[in-house]
Amino acid sequence: MSALPASYLTATETIFLVRAGKLTITEIAEAHLARYDERDSVIHAWAYFDREYILREAKRLDAIPESERGPLYGAVLGIKDVIDTKDMPTQHGCPIYQDHRPNVDGGPVGIARAAGALLIGKTHTTEFAASHVGTPARNAYDQDRTPGGSSSGSGAAVADWQCHVAFGTQTAGSTIRPGSYNGIFSMKPTWGAIGRDGCKILSVTLDTVGFFARSIADIQLFAQVFGLTDDIHSPSPPKPLSACTFAYVKTDQWIAGSGPSPELERAWSKSRQLLLDAGATIKDVELPPEFDNVAPRNRKIMAAEGRVNFLPEYMTGKDKLDPLIVSFVENRTNISRREQLDIYDAMAALRPKLDAIARQYDAIVTPSVPGEAWLGTESGDSRMCSLWTTLHLPTVQIPGFASKNGMPIGLTLAAPRYEDMRLLSVASEVAKVWVHADEELLRKIPAPEAARHCIP
Amino acid sequence: MSALPASYLTATETIFLVRAGKLTITEIAEAHLARYDERDSVIHAWAYFDREYILREAKRLDAIPESERGPLYGAVLGIKDVIDTKDMPTQHGCPIYQDHRPNVDGGPVGIARAAGALLIGKTHTTEFAASHVGTPARNAYDQDRTPGGSSSGSGAAVADWQCHVAFGTQTAGSTIRPGSYNGIFSMKPTWGAIGRDGCKILSVTLDTVGFFARSIADIQLFAQVFGLTDDIHSPSPPKPLSACTFAYVKTDQWIAGSGPSPELERAWSKSRQLLLDAGATIKDVELPPEFDNVAPRNRKIMAAEGRVNFLPEYMTGKDKLDPLIVSFVENRTNISRREQLDIYDAMAALRPKLDAIARQYDAIVTPSVPGEAWLGTESGDSRMCSLWTTLHLPTVQIPGFASKNGMPIGLTLAAPRYEDMRLLSVASEVAKVWVHADEELLRKIPAPEAARHCIP
Repeated sequence: MSALPASYLTATETIFLVRAGKLTITEIAEAHLARYDERDSVIHAWAYFDREYILREAKRLDAIPESERGPLYGAVLGIKDVIDTKDMPTQHGCPIYQDHRPNVDGGPVGIARAAGALLIGKTHTTEFAASHVGTPARNAYDQDRTPGGSSSGSGAAVADWQCHVAFGTQTAGSTIRPGSYNGIFSMKPTWGAIGRDGCKILSVTLDTVGFFARSIADIQLFAQVFGLTDDIHSPSPPKPLSACTFAYVKTDQWIAGSGPSPELERAWSKSRQLLLDAGATIKDVELPPEFDNVAPRNRKIMAAEGRVNFLPEYMTGKDKLDPLIVSFVENRTNISRREQLDIYDAMAALRPKLDAIARQYDAIVTPSVPGEAWLGTESGDSRMCSLWTTLHLPTVQIPGFASKNGMPIGLTLAAPRYEDMRLLSVASEVAKVWVHADEELLRKIPAPEAARHCIP
Repeated sequence: MSALPASYLTATETIFLVRAGKLTITEIAEAHLARYDERDSVIHAWAYFDREYILREAKRLDAIPESERGPLYGAVLGIKDVIDTKDMPTQHGCPIYQDHRPNVDGGPVGIARAAGALLIGKTHTTEFAASHVGTPARNAYDQDRTPGGSSSGSGAAVADWQCHVAFGTQTAGSTIRPGSYNGIFSMKPTWGAIGRDGCKILSVTLDTVGFFARSIADIQLFAQVFGLTDDIHSPSPPKPLSACTFAYVKTDQWIAGSGPSPELERAWSKSRQLLLDAGATIKDVELPPEFDNVAPRNRKIMAAEGRVNFLPEYMTGKDKLDPLIVSFVENRTNISRREQLDIYDAMAALRPKLDAIARQYDAIVTPSVPGEAWLGTESGDSRMCSLWTTLHLPTVQIPGFASKNGMPIGLTLAAPRYEDMRLLSVASEVAKVWVHADEELLRKIPAPEAARHCIP
């Protein structure tokens, strides 16, 4: 069976084959190791990857009796290197933490391990998921481009079929942006919906653990295992698009900077047409002015909280820190406590208001990014994500569109807080009409075999 | 010099003597080891205490050149066992974490270590600082009584002169309550003012790291090292009480349960008289009804967030968990996501309103606890602390009063968010008129020598 390219399947597909007795965890591990061998010299997704460890873990998992195998048994998981692992180093993309071994699993890792996932390695992150300086990771579609930060390695590894699913974290756009840049799905759940023990803190009020995957089904599976339940169960089968109404929301950031890129403009109008063709209703919705300028306030919260959260590292190894981290601790932007509180209170007041707007639609459609992945390794622009992250709404990035350079670009669906599972249900239908939209334009990732595309 | 009872001094006093060349860290360590030997069989404050480790650390500190000694050099610190330490186990009061060694310092520990404090051990905590079930720790004033939870060991150790200062955490009343029960000072800073990396999460929106100490000066020193700066510097010397106005605020919890105890009633009126005698102005302030019932909502937030945060432990060792933790994860109280969000939003809206009220006074005076430390080992009643914790205001517990059983009871000062240093400045003046109020009534802790009282 080991000829079967397990690295090519999604987690849910692989789990299905494992349950049917058609694949062992060791075979799955070997397929992923082969893919790693083929591609690591180009993609550099991993901050830690240990062949012996992976095979040992696969063997341990293969020995688990069938009745004790968890719901993620068969899934191959990459872990952003800001989340503690008991049996691998956790280095936070920072030289102060070189070879550090916390010896206890962070919460998300503990859940995935208990549910039977194969943890395949730690993925590159920018320093503390806060710095914008790039990592060694490269975009699988074009090695001259960034996979996007801060979850660079997670985005690259999942896109490049080196693992099924990977953890990301997002404080502004660190999960949605790499999802778009790498042409895969990613989800930033409702703030607080996933526990953060053992996850390095940048901003207590913003940080959110999320997922990268090559199908919505994989994210749905992980979301279920992680306890993301809504008050009301989603309909099964999902509500058809013909019964759905989408709000197209550009936000004030649409015209920020140099404005929307041609590829965003194109994805925006093409996505509308595809939804309209499927019978959906679309409304252009302009948010009231009180929702303007959340993006700069997101950056101020990050700086004000980074001031507190990186004090220990500043005291022990200031010289080894990214200048941005140092500027947080030294409060170089002179944010007063009162300004910090005013921002907290203003953002808190906006949250139920945005929920109320979102509640009028099946989902909000909004940009994931202003454009394609940047040349170089820097994280990229997060301004399109800031509003949703800061106001704690769940968002799902859906791939499908492409730039004239053949680089992927996706769009985001958003829903009111704690309607994560319903949002995923809507996303599964939207994905069907979007994901192949620009297939002919999109560059190809060198594949272990040509038969299947990464997005089913 | 080793005859000097270093365990009897406060941190600031000890640091002064060390700087004057009159004490070495080894001598300070030995004095504390002697106190431990004398009292551990009765007080049981420590979850981990290793004589060899302490002496080794003391020797390491003694070898540090004078020019490189940090601001806490000379301070002896106990660490609540929900905060990670790189060189001691971190067990969270939970059998799942027995002998766990995270190998990386939690944020507060990293700061204290970098600042030169001697870390003397891990103090007992109730399970994850969430359970109300007691720990082995006993109240230093009466071993039939609880030191209060969840920071039981920290409160007991500081009261019993086994360390100068100890870390606590508070989600409802876990730092202020043991402060009152043990007749010492304690502070819960503004939420978010101290970084929480490596601190076990119960509630992201409520958990706050704080301090226990035997003087306000010690808390001021630690607050300074931990970066608790206000927008406006406090006057030095502090504003005299004769120029201060205090709001006496009972909150809706005054009459909750069986109502205020006689000792609270007595502390309340005696404290007023002492402030009036010092020339202060006092106003009785009744909060508007929207501030009622924050305490039950504090419990709901804790349950809703505990549901998420203890999922990893539930999945790996459900049978070893306190039933309360299990009830959180299983959402036994049926809190809907919508109710959780409504509580978040309501609490967020109240925060600036309580700030605005508090800003009219030099400080708010409010109960720390409904009465003296309970018989037995349970944590006790936190309802008097819930409003301030949930609305993120900094609070300082000041000892001085006593019950007819000779047990200590204190009162709390509160200030608007991020006025921590100003609050401490006011507290230093209030402490002067309160701390000896009931000295004749108060039981005595068996002292290493009779010359000095624990509260200067």
